[in-house]
Amino acid sequence: MFLAEVLVSAEPEDDSTRRILDAALEAYEEFGLRRTTMDDVARKAGIGRATLYRRFPQKDDLVEAVGLREVRRFIAAADVEISKAANAEERMVEGFVAVVRGLREHRLLNRLLSSEPEAVLPGLTLHGGPVIALARGYLKDKIEEDQRAGHIRDFDAEPLAEMLARLIHSMVLTPEGVIPTREERQMRAFARTYLVPWLKV
Amino acid sequence: MFLAEVLVSAEPEDDSTRRILDAALEAYEEFGLRRTTMDDVARKAGIGRATLYRRFPQKDDLVEAVGLREVRRFIAAADVEISKAANAEERMVEGFVAVVRGLREHRLLNRLLSSEPEAVLPGLTLHGGPVIALARGYLKDKIEEDQRAGHIRDFDAEPLAEMLARLIHSMVLTPEGVIPTREERQMRAFARTYLVPWLKV
Repeated sequence: MFLAEVLVSAEPEDDSTRRILDAALEAYEEFGLRRTTMDDVARKAGIGRATLYRRFPQKDDLVEAVGLREVRRFIAAADVEISKAANAEERMVEGFVAVVRGLREHRLLNRLLSSEPEAVLPGLTLHGGPVIALARGYLKDKIEEDQRAGHIRDFDAEPLAEMLARLIHSMVLTPEGVIPTREERQMRAFARTYLVPWLKV
Repeated sequence: MFLAEVLVSAEPEDDSTRRILDAALEAYEEFGLRRTTMDDVARKAGIGRATLYRRFPQKDDLVEAVGLREVRRFIAAADVEISKAANAEERMVEGFVAVVRGLREHRLLNRLLSSEPEAVLPGLTLHGGPVIALARGYLKDKIEEDQRAGHIRDFDAEPLAEMLARLIHSMVLTPEGVIPTREERQMRAFARTYLVPWLKV
């Protein structure tokens, strides 16, 4: 997966591609990756096998396309929450809440982590560099926007962006801990006390 | 593994237990977990099979004992570096450098991550709560010592300790990134700029 190209390559989907991706997502959420066949997806999408294979020659291509669309959707949803916030501090707080809540509620991610960890763990850990890079790039842009606007001091935003990405990374892989992830009031209090000061390095 | 009891249960090893653990560590580093048999360990340690099985009835018991000793040794080594530092800020800087360097150079951890990831990833991720808790507990104690001595402000040290543990957690699982991990001068500069401010929450 070339995750770093996710945001760039957001070409509009035609109708049958969208139906294929919707059907595949639904099947993966319900049956997992291993048990879902290309035939299952074609049937569910109401399209012919030839059309499916023309677009996605291998099962892995389809899995990747579904994954990329989920990443794009996730970032777009977090972006909506972040853009509602009034200032840099609140963007940190609301961004943290939106991302943690979004990951906690992400059906496909949680389904695969619990039922097919061997299929997703390597890509999220040993080969997870592109995932970290994607999150870091997104967060760096957000921080730099606030720096250009003069809302926060001018420092190298990239390591800070990576620390945030890595905090979330660890929380996705190992949710158990004392950092609050369920009660939004507590999550906001945590972010205000412990994350907002990061903006003042 | 009851990692939370690691530090408490550091009872002194008798001579043959130490020989067994040394032999097992050496074999795991050289051949991995899967290919090392109990017989290999008994032979290498120069002890009888009966003695080995009396102490470690199952292969997993031996693996766990070796793992716990490595965690204890790792913490003891980091502790030496941290205790040399002159103040709370330097303890953060030297602790970061010691931990990152120690993990990067840890032969068994790196051997298993690269050759038998399926054997270690679940315990370091989905079932990694005890590992995070152990690191958090250790770091919390360190921060609270500095708080009691009046070197840093009084705040709830536990979430801060967990953020540090999670940063390192992510870096162990996915080293690739922009946070420096090799050149010590760069690692110190990173820790001074981005981690020391955490102490001023």
